Amino acid sequence: MMTVSLADRLLAGDSRALARAISFVENEASEGAEIIRRIFTRTGQAYLIGVTGAPGAGKSTLVDRLTAAIRAAGPTVGVVAVDPTSPFSGGAILGDRVRMQAHASDAGVFIRSMATRGHLGGLARATSEVALLLDASGKQTVIIETVGVGQDEVDIVRTADVSIVTLVPGAGDEVQALKAGIMEIADIFVVNKADREGVDRTVASIESLQALQTFGAGDWRPPIVKTVATTGEGVADLLAAVDRFRAHTKDSLGSRRKARAEFRLREILSRRFLQRVEDDVLRPGEFEAYLERIARRELDPYSAASEIMTRALAHQAAGGRGHGREGP
Amino acid sequence: MMTVSLADRLLAGDSRALARAISFVENEASEGAEIIRRIFTRTGQAYLIGVTGAPGAGKSTLVDRLTAAIRAAGPTVGVVAVDPTSPFSGGAILGDRVRMQAHASDAGVFIRSMATRGHLGGLARATSEVALLLDASGKQTVIIETVGVGQDEVDIVRTADVSIVTLVPGAGDEVQALKAGIMEIADIFVVNKADREGVDRTVASIESLQALQTFGAGDWRPPIVKTVATTGEGVADLLAAVDRFRAHTKDSLGSRRKARAEFRLREILSRRFLQRVEDDVLRPGEFEAYLERIARRELDPYSAASEIMTRALAHQAAGGRGHGREGP
Repeated sequence: MMTVSLADRLLAGDSRALARAISFVENEASEGAEIIRRIFTRTGQAYLIGVTGAPGAGKSTLVDRLTAAIRAAGPTVGVVAVDPTSPFSGGAILGDRVRMQAHASDAGVFIRSMATRGHLGGLARATSEVALLLDASGKQTVIIETVGVGQDEVDIVRTADVSIVTLVPGAGDEVQALKAGIMEIADIFVVNKADREGVDRTVASIESLQALQTFGAGDWRPPIVKTVATTGEGVADLLAAVDRFRAHTKDSLGSRRKARAEFRLREILSRRFLQRVEDDVLRPGEFEAYLERIARRELDPYSAASEIMTRALAHQAAGGRGHGREGP
Repeated sequence: MMTVSLADRLLAGDSRALARAISFVENEASEGAEIIRRIFTRTGQAYLIGVTGAPGAGKSTLVDRLTAAIRAAGPTVGVVAVDPTSPFSGGAILGDRVRMQAHASDAGVFIRSMATRGHLGGLARATSEVALLLDASGKQTVIIETVGVGQDEVDIVRTADVSIVTLVPGAGDEVQALKAGIMEIADIFVVNKADREGVDRTVASIESLQALQTFGAGDWRPPIVKTVATTGEGVADLLAAVDRFRAHTKDSLGSRRKARAEFRLREILSRRFLQRVEDDVLRPGEFEAYLERIARRELDPYSAASEIMTRALAHQAAGGRGHGREGP
């Protein structure tokens, strides 16, 4: 079978097989689910680094520098960059080419941007599956880069093995705006563009928010690392902070990975159920008809959901075609 | 029944009933679903304005000014502000109090921030339901304000009747970062803080991206409105642009409202199915056990989903308790 050999080639570290598998996952093709199924037990080797921050914080340059620093230390690196702001046109591809050039001669680096979107957490699901593919292909470190102020992106980043929140000087408003949220997400803070005015004020803002938190004796207190990604300044410090965090959380990695598992399983179950409803339970055009009645305010969405649930259950009890094992 | 009278009071415009109903929706309480069910056919009267932009773009001040301008023209206003960056601590409440003060003497204004979070589109669902409650309570204009670079937030804003994207001068990086996405979301661009240096360059960046788009003869070409929200400058122009867009799209409003209906219905169906799986199909602790096996890489999430789906269907065929009509 095509997908068997593709999975095998991917597990052997073939970059073209990796790129192809990513496309399947990105397009929500059934081959994508099949590949994930085949490679899953071989994953869990890579360390997942989540990097988030507002647009313009210099995340992609920072991730490029971090990638170079990790490579210099030895481990191979896979990067998946979520680009949720161009979900419609797949405009991320050109960006990939530009970014790959910096590592063009290095087979130990693979970078991919995600511009896919889908219903109900589809982007988060696809991102997390691309991370699995990179892991399975032998990348020892996987970096997930997102614009991290949306719910999906927060979910992506907080389920990484370590979460880095990137800010820039003069982002006092932003620190305020982000307040509680980032304090609970961040394992490490980066103040990038640290050659700009206002860097100390931004550091002080973070520290004043940290002062409101209580840290126990053995608790990790998120360090604040200043970087200038364009020159590479501070990137070694950032990598050192990642290594310290990794050592600190060696024994508690499992709970984050369980949260990631929950996120995945719920998304897959939801998608399958909705697919089943549309394909098997309802007649063609009937889902559309429900939407029109809701849009016209003739029927409320909860009553529509109840009707559909009742029909889905009756359908099954009457021996409807069992579609339990098809993916995705 | 309590919820009957609460729905009635809400429909009569009672602010306390409105606040209470919002809390039910926000906490995903079953009363919330019941209230939505009762008021739904009475909604669809309000015009929904989506306002999005990165943190620090001055959205909340802009929305306050816009609210005042709309009120001066007559219509009542409800505001729901999504605060996805503080999903953990419910820190939005204090902000509401500060914001309400500007309209404290005006019973025609109601402002509420959302800090709720949930699985798979829960925030988007809650926001859209709060908008319904505001609509049902008689608010003629409902403004949904989000930090709009995440997938959920994009979904919220693009299903509003009109989408306003807010940028600030000097956000050249940001315009680039946002590129294709915002071009397809925005019905109106606002360059806020237009008294700052770089405003013309930001306007030019947007125009150069618009130059790449093709507009037909009758197509809406998103205008670029400069504002200084802190002084109110340009806010009248913004309101005029909203009114022009509203007149322009009078006949095509239905398709957006259908997209909103789809978003809602899928989210409710997913949630009910997952609830059913956890409550009825699996034994207590079994969902957890699946997660642990996935986290330990003993089982892949697709195979787990297949097993659970098969069991859910067998359970029903064997006459499992039918939970089709419970909410939410």
